[in-house]
Amino acid sequence: MASVKIKKQNNKDFNLEELKQLTNDQLIEKIKSLQAHNVQLKTLLIKSSTETKTSVNRLKKPFDSSKHVLLKFFYLGWDYQGFVVQEDTTKTIEHYLFESLTRTCLIKDRESSNYHRCGRTDKGVSSFGQVISIDLRSKLSADNQHDIENELDYCKLLNRVLPDNIQCVAWSPVKSDVSARFDCTGRTYKYFFPKSCLNIEKMSRAANNLLGTHDFRNFCKMDVGNGVVEYIRNILFINISLFDENDTEDNERTMYVITIRGKAFLWHQIRCIMAVLFLIGEGKEEETIIDELLDVNKNSRKPEYFMASEVPLNLFQCDYDIENNWRYDESSLSIVKAKLKSMWTFHNIKGTMILSMLNELDRSCPTDLEIQNYLHLENKTKRYIPLMARKRCESLEEKIKHYVKRSRLEIHNEPESTT
Amino acid sequence: MASVKIKKQNNKDFNLEELKQLTNDQLIEKIKSLQAHNVQLKTLLIKSSTETKTSVNRLKKPFDSSKHVLLKFFYLGWDYQGFVVQEDTTKTIEHYLFESLTRTCLIKDRESSNYHRCGRTDKGVSSFGQVISIDLRSKLSADNQHDIENELDYCKLLNRVLPDNIQCVAWSPVKSDVSARFDCTGRTYKYFFPKSCLNIEKMSRAANNLLGTHDFRNFCKMDVGNGVVEYIRNILFINISLFDENDTEDNERTMYVITIRGKAFLWHQIRCIMAVLFLIGEGKEEETIIDELLDVNKNSRKPEYFMASEVPLNLFQCDYDIENNWRYDESSLSIVKAKLKSMWTFHNIKGTMILSMLNELDRSCPTDLEIQNYLHLENKTKRYIPLMARKRCESLEEKIKHYVKRSRLEIHNEPESTT
Repeated sequence: MASVKIKKQNNKDFNLEELKQLTNDQLIEKIKSLQAHNVQLKTLLIKSSTETKTSVNRLKKPFDSSKHVLLKFFYLGWDYQGFVVQEDTTKTIEHYLFESLTRTCLIKDRESSNYHRCGRTDKGVSSFGQVISIDLRSKLSADNQHDIENELDYCKLLNRVLPDNIQCVAWSPVKSDVSARFDCTGRTYKYFFPKSCLNIEKMSRAANNLLGTHDFRNFCKMDVGNGVVEYIRNILFINISLFDENDTEDNERTMYVITIRGKAFLWHQIRCIMAVLFLIGEGKEEETIIDELLDVNKNSRKPEYFMASEVPLNLFQCDYDIENNWRYDESSLSIVKAKLKSMWTFHNIKGTMILSMLNELDRSCPTDLEIQNYLHLENKTKRYIPLMARKRCESLEEKIKHYVKRSRLEIHNEPESTT
Repeated sequence: MASVKIKKQNNKDFNLEELKQLTNDQLIEKIKSLQAHNVQLKTLLIKSSTETKTSVNRLKKPFDSSKHVLLKFFYLGWDYQGFVVQEDTTKTIEHYLFESLTRTCLIKDRESSNYHRCGRTDKGVSSFGQVISIDLRSKLSADNQHDIENELDYCKLLNRVLPDNIQCVAWSPVKSDVSARFDCTGRTYKYFFPKSCLNIEKMSRAANNLLGTHDFRNFCKMDVGNGVVEYIRNILFINISLFDENDTEDNERTMYVITIRGKAFLWHQIRCIMAVLFLIGEGKEEETIIDELLDVNKNSRKPEYFMASEVPLNLFQCDYDIENNWRYDESSLSIVKAKLKSMWTFHNIKGTMILSMLNELDRSCPTDLEIQNYLHLENKTKRYIPLMARKRCESLEEKIKHYVKRSRLEIHNEPESTT
């Protein structure tokens, strides 16, 4: 068996004495190796700046005509800093959306595109059914707009340049005055969670008490500074069910989903609702806490509590009076489904690998591990303090007074429409 | 040799002809400049990475005594650039390992810690059973080393400062000459994969042909430049099984695991084996391709093919003659298990959310989606070319000749021990 001695490690930096000992050929070898390493480092540096360059001065096709459309798309929001564009990061859904719209020359720029969005979602939150309304370049002349089969394939064009975890699903031509925000007739959220130690029936009963029109100020983060001074909303539908109806197993890993539909929601409303439902499901609060918190006369100041995790939250569906007009392109959707299946596969593999480690650890060293709900920070506190015994936040009236005093708010009489 | 005036731009890369024109002094100048530029680039790279600063000059407790130990730990490698420390990034397992060892004052520094590692794992690869041997600070005096119950709780101390996805599991005191690398009696890898479109029985039969002692040069990436000139290895055990024996369902999502045990493996050996097994499972190659590729006389030059994905690969177990001496601390392990359970929960939630999107897309727009294996790039090529018909890489003999010619290798007669 031949053995090998490596003579020189090319990565070692030589000092002057060592260099003087080398022959011309050896020096040249060294230079070539250093130059190659140099190129490699530069490439890495460019890659390490994670921002995609905003494309400017792209070849702009003249806009023959444009059409007003609704565009439906999904995004897996876990790695993004929220939906809305921000000053200090490009890692937002809107940033990639507008980059794809301009790169494909479907719009000139955001300002002239007549853009509205159905809803804002926060950092880490996903959406299956987000909708925007926007004017897009049309292949058809102004006279020929009815020839819809020959229109540009908007989803296909955009999906090629969007990241895999933000993809267009369907589009629909609409009248020019339709707004994704103001014409939305209903918004549905889903929240996915494993059973863990939760009493699902208790949670279901408690959830029913949220149905209907209530003042939800104790189930959200108040946003008085941005003009939100009334907190009455109507929950049209709420339900907890098995994710997979055919799931026969009923253990801590069994997946459930809560579906909540309303016309509009308050800031962090779903995550606050989930936090309280979790406390009920864990037996830390009684179901009656729901009615307590909805009674804003009796409880005008919200007890301090952590929201539930944002990871399982999904703006699943946004409704408009156009259900039968959504245009789905089969070939485009096949590609989207393959991307989703691929992502699902990798999550499943990672979950399986972690499970195998857990099983092996249990074999080597069995320990009694209490079943925990990992979806809210409430569990990290050692001693549980009942909600009604906790420190309270400022009331709505106190907050309004505070902002009026600082001349940041003026109170008028007409109702404010909120998202 | 005519001298040439070097252009003022030190950054310009010279080609061979230009270099041959330079004097030795000019070549040396060039080298010094390139070395300095490289150092600068490396510094910039490290700054641009978001990593925690390496702590230097921490308050160092004087080392009363130290002991030689084996330390067993796991890591989820998906977000790291491999196990081994690298010049241009701090996102390596070893970086965090040594940071935790110095922060806890368990070692002074890497150089004096008598450190060996069982195996190297590449970018994206995980491990459940990685082992290192190292000298750690001991609470016990040199005379009192047998009082092992009162020794420092190494795992607990380190886990507090390690990231959640790198955690210590157990440790064992060993004789001072024990090496994690050279005293390892066997290494076991696991690779987790969903059934997708694969014929598992065919893959199992083919896998059996890999058992035993063979020349695996066609099932790896040859590393002649680093002195690896012989490719004979012994696979002691190989098996494909259901991940969950109680799994009654048998569809594309059903999880399988392949377990492969040997004394030592070649670079990318498992990923190459998986790539070929996948081709067999997908019906693109016959089972006989295994014997073909193991016949290095007939096939001395490896056909070009993509490796399988690194995400499902896990260095699961490393064996030593000390099985009953691993010390597991229950309370420490409870915390580790809770962390793993939390990570598992989030992967499962994400997978479930993606599945719900897929189901909904299927409802809105049913398409026939061919079942695909997402674990190797082979599937991205449109037309399948059989392995035996493909372009071939250089043979081992050709590679050796190449490196010997460039004076980077010397061939001797005594045997070389390899990992």
